[in-house]
Amino acid sequence: MQNFEYYNRTKIIFGKDTEDQVGGETAKYAKRVLLHHSGGSAVKSGLLDRVKTSLKKASVEWVELDGVKPNPRLSKVHEGVALCKKEKLEFILAVGGGSVIDSAKAIAIGALYDGDVWDFYDRKKTAALALPVATVLTIPAAGSESSISSVITNEQGPWKQSVDEECIRPVFSILNPELTYSLPNYQTACGVSDMLAHIMERYFTKEPHVELTDELCEGAMRAIIRNARKIFSGGEKDYNARAEIMWAGAIAHNNLLSTGRIGDWGSHLIEHELSAFFDVAHGAGLSIIFPAWITYNIKEDTPRLARFAAKVWGVDGAFYDYEQAALEGVFRMKNFFRSIGLPVTFADAKLDPAKIPEMAKHAVKFGPLGNYRKLNEKDVEAIYRLAVE
Amino acid sequence: MQNFEYYNRTKIIFGKDTEDQVGGETAKYAKRVLLHHSGGSAVKSGLLDRVKTSLKKASVEWVELDGVKPNPRLSKVHEGVALCKKEKLEFILAVGGGSVIDSAKAIAIGALYDGDVWDFYDRKKTAALALPVATVLTIPAAGSESSISSVITNEQGPWKQSVDEECIRPVFSILNPELTYSLPNYQTACGVSDMLAHIMERYFTKEPHVELTDELCEGAMRAIIRNARKIFSGGEKDYNARAEIMWAGAIAHNNLLSTGRIGDWGSHLIEHELSAFFDVAHGAGLSIIFPAWITYNIKEDTPRLARFAAKVWGVDGAFYDYEQAALEGVFRMKNFFRSIGLPVTFADAKLDPAKIPEMAKHAVKFGPLGNYRKLNEKDVEAIYRLAVE
Repeated sequence: MQNFEYYNRTKIIFGKDTEDQVGGETAKYAKRVLLHHSGGSAVKSGLLDRVKTSLKKASVEWVELDGVKPNPRLSKVHEGVALCKKEKLEFILAVGGGSVIDSAKAIAIGALYDGDVWDFYDRKKTAALALPVATVLTIPAAGSESSISSVITNEQGPWKQSVDEECIRPVFSILNPELTYSLPNYQTACGVSDMLAHIMERYFTKEPHVELTDELCEGAMRAIIRNARKIFSGGEKDYNARAEIMWAGAIAHNNLLSTGRIGDWGSHLIEHELSAFFDVAHGAGLSIIFPAWITYNIKEDTPRLARFAAKVWGVDGAFYDYEQAALEGVFRMKNFFRSIGLPVTFADAKLDPAKIPEMAKHAVKFGPLGNYRKLNEKDVEAIYRLAVE
Repeated sequence: MQNFEYYNRTKIIFGKDTEDQVGGETAKYAKRVLLHHSGGSAVKSGLLDRVKTSLKKASVEWVELDGVKPNPRLSKVHEGVALCKKEKLEFILAVGGGSVIDSAKAIAIGALYDGDVWDFYDRKKTAALALPVATVLTIPAAGSESSISSVITNEQGPWKQSVDEECIRPVFSILNPELTYSLPNYQTACGVSDMLAHIMERYFTKEPHVELTDELCEGAMRAIIRNARKIFSGGEKDYNARAEIMWAGAIAHNNLLSTGRIGDWGSHLIEHELSAFFDVAHGAGLSIIFPAWITYNIKEDTPRLARFAAKVWGVDGAFYDYEQAALEGVFRMKNFFRSIGLPVTFADAKLDPAKIPEMAKHAVKFGPLGNYRKLNEKDVEAIYRLAVE
């Protein structure tokens, strides 16, 4: 087991009607806030009005900025930064999913910086200061509600880059599973894929002595898979299934599951190019990349890949033939993703394989990817090709 | 699933040589601290000298208070409170196990209170203010290193009472598994029993929809049992086995595993009387009480008890006869406890059963115990009797 630090200061407020607490919690930090959202479902569902009512009751003033899109854009972040500076806002409240939260985190850093906030995403600067960020989560997926991560797309590229710093971890996050009843199935499925990927990135490690966290990872993945099946078998309004998925999404990315180990994270970076080049949803990109990544790595610590197949996908006979068991696990994972409506190939998602060489080249621009096995441009290209059809 | 809040601000610094960071971390909070310990193993092992060297390097001054005993005493807490007030100390650094940490937490509340600190343990006052507490942990067991709990014994009684308040949660805790190599086997075993009990208290709930946390609880218990077996099969200096146990002890009691559910906690209160009347170690009291508690409750949600037997103790055939499976689980749990040198009956520990009526009466002095099934005086007495031999 590796030495580690574990620290997560986000206060999670979880359950029915918890959005009514947002005003009181916000007032502990600020009196003037940026209220950041997409302008879509949170408005239509009435959630935004309930949030405003709660803010008003707590005498918190707000300035609104909507229009965040999936794969959140740098141009919108620039708008938010300008607004915070002009209006002297002290706090960013994100109401939405991972895109809104990631955009809020970027604004929070930018608001206290004189240059272009892209400097932090382009690794020219390290973020150490940010306005406090909090969230009312509507899409369980990215885990951004208690993570130190923000991923932003610069439309000049397309470049999709991340910042991972303690200063942007939300101070509180409100998670009401009822808010997810009305999610389109495709978004629910993308969220499930994203949180499974967050666990798999941590699970696939070369560190041999991480038995406790292996158990926690496997248990969380089984719970996600079973409850996703419930939701996709007519359980759209099954509170408990929605609650299991929502809490799992936060735990998947709050770093407990990576304690003592070095995760991989290659697949995330390989996927980022799919999102950047084709604007495919992150979760849908991951359901394409992950099966190919495992298949490409089948000779790389095969017993761990077989254990994954056995413990998470119920593959029997892992002890007779590790490689066969691991491949059966990939097969079942693909079946699961397709059963909830996700693509598992370029063909499924109608993506053009002609872009593969350019994507592979761009993916490794900061060097080889991943830790389970270091992947260079040729490896990344081979993984894309395994996913073609 | 129940609504919940989850918040744990303790920074965990885990791994080899991490005690060298204690000065730097402490200096972020205070320049004059109470250095609290037992005066025993931490002195002999040289740990205390290393802690002092680190404090000195960071220009932190300390006043020392040693002599904490297992089942920490109110009289020692009073000494610490007086010392903090006289010396104007700003911070309590506990070097030791749960007893030292619980004593430190009591001192931290008492130092900012004009009356007798026992008022908080006797439920006359609610603790809201405390000096910051931090720990260098030497015994993985109580989980006190990141919990809000402190249990103190008032020698006037004997009364063993607890305070559970956010203000006494440690600001940081340093966990170096190497420090546990030299623990006597009995103390290691008591720790294993204590952390398993912390998970079982959370696991035994009537809340039906807690699938994710059930999985996390079961996985953590399996990891504890397997790694305890490694340590007790000649692995006293197996770093990784010690590390799994040490990290599991913190996770068992950091409240992640109780999110969305109401735990039981009856067995802890039933055990407290064993510790108070016979000064038996808490972990050894729990290994006596828990098998009896399950046996007494065998008709109470038998499928959950059978699931526990199947998932944690590997009992097969749970689906044919729930009760038989649950009892086989109890049998295996007792075997496991005995295999690591713990008592599972009053007779094993040479405790006098004549005290049972008085203990049962005292156990329920604040009302019935537990949530899985409310236990009154007669129930508690019956559980003690099931544990006699």
